[in-house]
Amino acid sequence: MNVFVIGIGLIGGSFAIDIKAAFNEAKVYGIDNNTKHLDDALSLGFIDYKSKIDDLANADVVVIAIPVDATVEILPSILDKVPDNCLVFDAGSTKKKLCNTISDHKKRRNYLAVHPIAGTEFSGPQAAIANLYRGKTNIICEVEKTAFKLQERGMEIFSRLGMRIRYMDPGSHDKHIAYVSHLSHISSFMLGKTVIEKEKNERDIFDMAGSGFASTVRLAKSSPAMWAPIFKHNKENVIETLEEYIINLTQFKELIEKDDFSAIYKEMENTNHIKTILKGIV
Amino acid sequence: MNVFVIGIGLIGGSFAIDIKAAFNEAKVYGIDNNTKHLDDALSLGFIDYKSKIDDLANADVVVIAIPVDATVEILPSILDKVPDNCLVFDAGSTKKKLCNTISDHKKRRNYLAVHPIAGTEFSGPQAAIANLYRGKTNIICEVEKTAFKLQERGMEIFSRLGMRIRYMDPGSHDKHIAYVSHLSHISSFMLGKTVIEKEKNERDIFDMAGSGFASTVRLAKSSPAMWAPIFKHNKENVIETLEEYIINLTQFKELIEKDDFSAIYKEMENTNHIKTILKGIV
Repeated sequence: MNVFVIGIGLIGGSFAIDIKAAFNEAKVYGIDNNTKHLDDALSLGFIDYKSKIDDLANADVVVIAIPVDATVEILPSILDKVPDNCLVFDAGSTKKKLCNTISDHKKRRNYLAVHPIAGTEFSGPQAAIANLYRGKTNIICEVEKTAFKLQERGMEIFSRLGMRIRYMDPGSHDKHIAYVSHLSHISSFMLGKTVIEKEKNERDIFDMAGSGFASTVRLAKSSPAMWAPIFKHNKENVIETLEEYIINLTQFKELIEKDDFSAIYKEMENTNHIKTILKGIV
Repeated sequence: MNVFVIGIGLIGGSFAIDIKAAFNEAKVYGIDNNTKHLDDALSLGFIDYKSKIDDLANADVVVIAIPVDATVEILPSILDKVPDNCLVFDAGSTKKKLCNTISDHKKRRNYLAVHPIAGTEFSGPQAAIANLYRGKTNIICEVEKTAFKLQERGMEIFSRLGMRIRYMDPGSHDKHIAYVSHLSHISSFMLGKTVIEKEKNERDIFDMAGSGFASTVRLAKSSPAMWAPIFKHNKENVIETLEEYIINLTQFKELIEKDDFSAIYKEMENTNHIKTILKGIV
């Protein structure tokens, strides 16, 4: 099985590691604009060969793990190049624009729209880790538009990697993911910004910040190259979540201004309910 | 050494556990309005005796670990009751109001204003753990107003518990801590609220939420009984941080609306700098 991974970073690299471990016969070919990343992936041993887009004629599986705007740009030509029996899937955090882009492509049935809910705040091949996907949710959109044999090949990969599959339409995916993922990143980035702006003396932040701050601001370490295109693709949904978030923050501030601390208490008590919801998420 | 711990929850209980481990001769007396908590602390073995405020005449050390508004209310009468050579310290997340309240108390020199930057999102005696304070920052305010011998006793305790000491005035403490702690809690609570409001179908949140959301919303599990009084005490500073946070979020939203994704990129890239600042925080 010839597996081509386009984008040898945290996501693509972790797929490479796990696919090599799960499929003895897999040969992994890495493709990346960043030659340093390719060299790193080769010396880290999770790709077998450095490769190029033009070699895709030999692919059985293509994994695309690059920023979502680059995926939209490149996906049609990738589909043009792959053989008829090749599965192409991406791992991007938005799905609607991607699905729309290739909806009329003559090789639409070679593509599976995938979003593995997995990752860390780090990036690049050095950040790739084994078992990143184990126990994680994998959202698949428009599964019915993919050829049955290729659905099956995808499922075999995801199953050996230990993922839980959920099917959704691209619109619902983008709407819900804006709440549970994209908004978290913005709230974290802006928390980091607010604190950095205020605390010019970094020693003070470091010394006074505890694990609570570290946890809340963790996502502000994430890669702008990955996240700016996500916000661009999911613009309407992200704006909606931000508006609701800002309204809730403003209302909380007004309760403090009015000294209505019993309402403040109730707001927090109601939200404590998140404990139950989160039970089971790593 | 007779140590009285008022408030046998996460913070007080963890002090009890570590002080018992670090001082062979320590006897720990627990005081709590919640009799169930007292019974739990006794059966968990981290207090030796259940006790009452009126027994404080025998105290060598009093640790106050109750919500900050309750501490302000009770601290003067605690100082009235303790013997002349007794050290009283609290562990509250705001310091200015507390220091002001007892500034003219005749036993001011028995009090040390302390804020250990340590905790988890859990509460109650079951949440108390050993070594919670090891390697953590302990902020001490107005140290010069505490009797030298009692400063020394406090330092001996904090040193054996493995804490790093930092001295600050109460006003600066409250201002900085609003940024690195209080704002994180509100951003997390309101993130939880925004997502819960939207996602009535909780299965969907659970299945789509990854470790990023879990981390950012972790503090929304915190105790309202502890946090409502903190926001009340630190009202002005908290409002200021919230205003700046809301401005930054609104500006980020406007950049998305204007499709200025290169500015979005730069905002995130600048904030990535938090990596360096956070290095070393657990």
